[in-house]
Amino acid sequence: MLNQKLQDIKDLVNSHIQGDIELNSAELTEHLKFLKKEDEEIYKAILNELDSESLGEAAVQMPNHMLKDVIALPDEKVADAIEELESDDATDLIQNIGDIDENRAKQIFDSLETDSKKEISRLINYDENEAGAYMQIEVFSCELNQTLGDVIQKFRMLKNSGELVRVFQLFVLDEHGILRYCVPLDDLLLFDPDEQISEIMKKHSAEYEPHFVQDSDDIMCVAQIVKDYDLSSVPVVNKAGVLLGRITTYDIHDFLEDSATEQIYHLAGVDDEAEDEETLFKAGKARALWLCVNLITAIISSVVISYFDESINKIVALAVLMPIVASMGGNTGTQALTVTVRRLAIGEINFAHAKATLLKELSIAAVNGAIFATLMGVIAHFWFNINNLGLVIAMSMMINLSLAGLFGALIPMGLKRLNIDPAVGSSVLLTTVTDVVGFFSFLGLATWILL
Amino acid sequence: MLNQKLQDIKDLVNSHIQGDIELNSAELTEHLKFLKKEDEEIYKAILNELDSESLGEAAVQMPNHMLKDVIALPDEKVADAIEELESDDATDLIQNIGDIDENRAKQIFDSLETDSKKEISRLINYDENEAGAYMQIEVFSCELNQTLGDVIQKFRMLKNSGELVRVFQLFVLDEHGILRYCVPLDDLLLFDPDEQISEIMKKHSAEYEPHFVQDSDDIMCVAQIVKDYDLSSVPVVNKAGVLLGRITTYDIHDFLEDSATEQIYHLAGVDDEAEDEETLFKAGKARALWLCVNLITAIISSVVISYFDESINKIVALAVLMPIVASMGGNTGTQALTVTVRRLAIGEINFAHAKATLLKELSIAAVNGAIFATLMGVIAHFWFNINNLGLVIAMSMMINLSLAGLFGALIPMGLKRLNIDPAVGSSVLLTTVTDVVGFFSFLGLATWILL
Repeated sequence: MLNQKLQDIKDLVNSHIQGDIELNSAELTEHLKFLKKEDEEIYKAILNELDSESLGEAAVQMPNHMLKDVIALPDEKVADAIEELESDDATDLIQNIGDIDENRAKQIFDSLETDSKKEISRLINYDENEAGAYMQIEVFSCELNQTLGDVIQKFRMLKNSGELVRVFQLFVLDEHGILRYCVPLDDLLLFDPDEQISEIMKKHSAEYEPHFVQDSDDIMCVAQIVKDYDLSSVPVVNKAGVLLGRITTYDIHDFLEDSATEQIYHLAGVDDEAEDEETLFKAGKARALWLCVNLITAIISSVVISYFDESINKIVALAVLMPIVASMGGNTGTQALTVTVRRLAIGEINFAHAKATLLKELSIAAVNGAIFATLMGVIAHFWFNINNLGLVIAMSMMINLSLAGLFGALIPMGLKRLNIDPAVGSSVLLTTVTDVVGFFSFLGLATWILL
Repeated sequence: MLNQKLQDIKDLVNSHIQGDIELNSAELTEHLKFLKKEDEEIYKAILNELDSESLGEAAVQMPNHMLKDVIALPDEKVADAIEELESDDATDLIQNIGDIDENRAKQIFDSLETDSKKEISRLINYDENEAGAYMQIEVFSCELNQTLGDVIQKFRMLKNSGELVRVFQLFVLDEHGILRYCVPLDDLLLFDPDEQISEIMKKHSAEYEPHFVQDSDDIMCVAQIVKDYDLSSVPVVNKAGVLLGRITTYDIHDFLEDSATEQIYHLAGVDDEAEDEETLFKAGKARALWLCVNLITAIISSVVISYFDESINKIVALAVLMPIVASMGGNTGTQALTVTVRRLAIGEINFAHAKATLLKELSIAAVNGAIFATLMGVIAHFWFNINNLGLVIAMSMMINLSLAGLFGALIPMGLKRLNIDPAVGSSVLLTTVTDVVGFFSFLGLATWILL
């Protein structure tokens, strides 16, 4: 059965190479991944035969262990593949290659055409959170003094030569290259081709007022603008307003999905990049690091417990009940933490809402704390029938759950203020707080009140 | 300062009502939210003055507690606002109103024009996971026997009358309404207006082959297609291939972001819809329900501990160390669980990968289990200096961490198989397993080996 599948996928990819069918880059990459796993030889032969465009587009999507095989191909072949990509993807690919082997990245970069080198050099300098890092410099633009007919002529030429793909907007620039208007491309169908662009714009100036971002803007803010205005692409300008490139909604899409995965993973102590690696070793190592941090905090909690070993010796019910206090605190805190981390991430709250957020999380946790403290107090009383034991567990749960809510909001906001990704360290810090406070308050109160 | 802000925002919204500036619906909704909070009277006056389009678009975005104020407006005003919306948004709004007050929804529905009623009745029948539920029926289409010139003429007319917004594609239908081709709108600039559509399509048939989905397809699969092919919108057809509507990338965008938030929240036992409510009561109540489930599982763990009260009485170190076994198991399991839930959600894995996924998670957990079991065994030995205590904690951690990895993958895959959202119940089931196994294996082995 496996052999049949291998044959089928080989046939499919070969049909793509022959040009009989067209696989998209996601499909192609999936098939290559399968081939590499099942038959390295066929896989390498196919890598060699792929046309530059397919190779380039697949390479952008490949995890590092597959990309290694691509950069083992001759310089020229890799360079041709990069030339076929849009500037942002070309830059990403060169960066990915550099992550594997810096020298190889330099060699390949040197084999590129002068224009591509210039483009990549410009884009590679942006910080990974800057809008510029997500920008492609291929845009369709015109000047105010052209006629619509000229513009359409230019569009046909560029489109037929394959230089423009997925164009959504015409960017109208003044004589200094400053962005003045954005026109959805299909609107060009509405006007008379003999009219001058400047005339058309005069009549529709409000409608074609551009929404733009600066190259140094934070990509999160760019995503917000794209969402708020439902843009298909957003022009990127420099400080002076000169058009530098555009960011498409697809790029924003990918960015948001990757961010969500990153947050979900980070909250659980998993590294999103390590999980994508070929071998389990890197994923396992990244997870082990996190478990190591957790072990340290667990030992700290145990040290707290060990201070009260005599109390436990006298009332063994304390050992039975203490995990409940810690666990309920942990869960209450995680609720507050998760909501705060996510709302910070999608821009629903910021520092202006700090006080309101803390108050909200504290209130919810305190009310729930009161409910479950009472409930658990009654249960503990009837379970063990020890005087005041119910009161002790109720008091400690009230303290622990309230603090859990407060710290659940405080920790991510504090980390964010310190420019640390709130998703990364929050959970472990919170668990330390809820465990230590939980064990200390319960065992401490028990020692004080019961003994 | 607050008064100044109130005045500013009031001025801003009034300028929007006067038509001097244009706020997008997200901005407008934010401002309305602020006004409602600060001055209910101004807020209600402004709701009354908003034009139908602004009111409709804001209403779609409003949480229920604000929507209540909108449906308190006269039937006709609400109906006009709904008429201004695209069919998918109109349907959502009627549904949201129905969630608040079913009778009111019926009254408003009855005030709509016949066409709108028909559209909404059709869309409202789709299940929330079906592509049809995300579809808008407004499309720009033509038949094969028209000339390009006719089509452009029709486009200008529809566009100028405001009936078409955000059009990306021309859908070419045959005489039975069956979708034959999809043409990016800007490509219409490339061809001769006198040519017949059928002629143009003949020459470019491969290029304009449509990517489409069926109205009964799962929205997750639609999102995958939109991503894989970087589509700006995807046509929706029925079983016979007849064009029914389209889904835009914006809708997919919103769907994916909401799904990510939902997953993150569910993993932490938080309900995404309740969190959006005005009062803290509903959010708190939803969280309390989850804490209640957690309390039950915590009590189950405590019952396990209580079986070993004599052992704890003899060796108090057991009480000190037992939370470490449970905590490390919980964390190891959460790592496996989170990766599995997310990879299932974004379509990276499915049932075909079940065996590989279980094996992967079990291996990582077992290797990390061996490392931390050894480490903790040594620490426990030197900490308490009790014969074989190190061996006991090492063995129980080895068991608990391995099972944690296995169940971390097994639980979400099992829930998914049972058609239950894997993000919802996974965490609590997992914690029950890791706590019970952790306490039972550690205390059980200790009783057996040490006593």
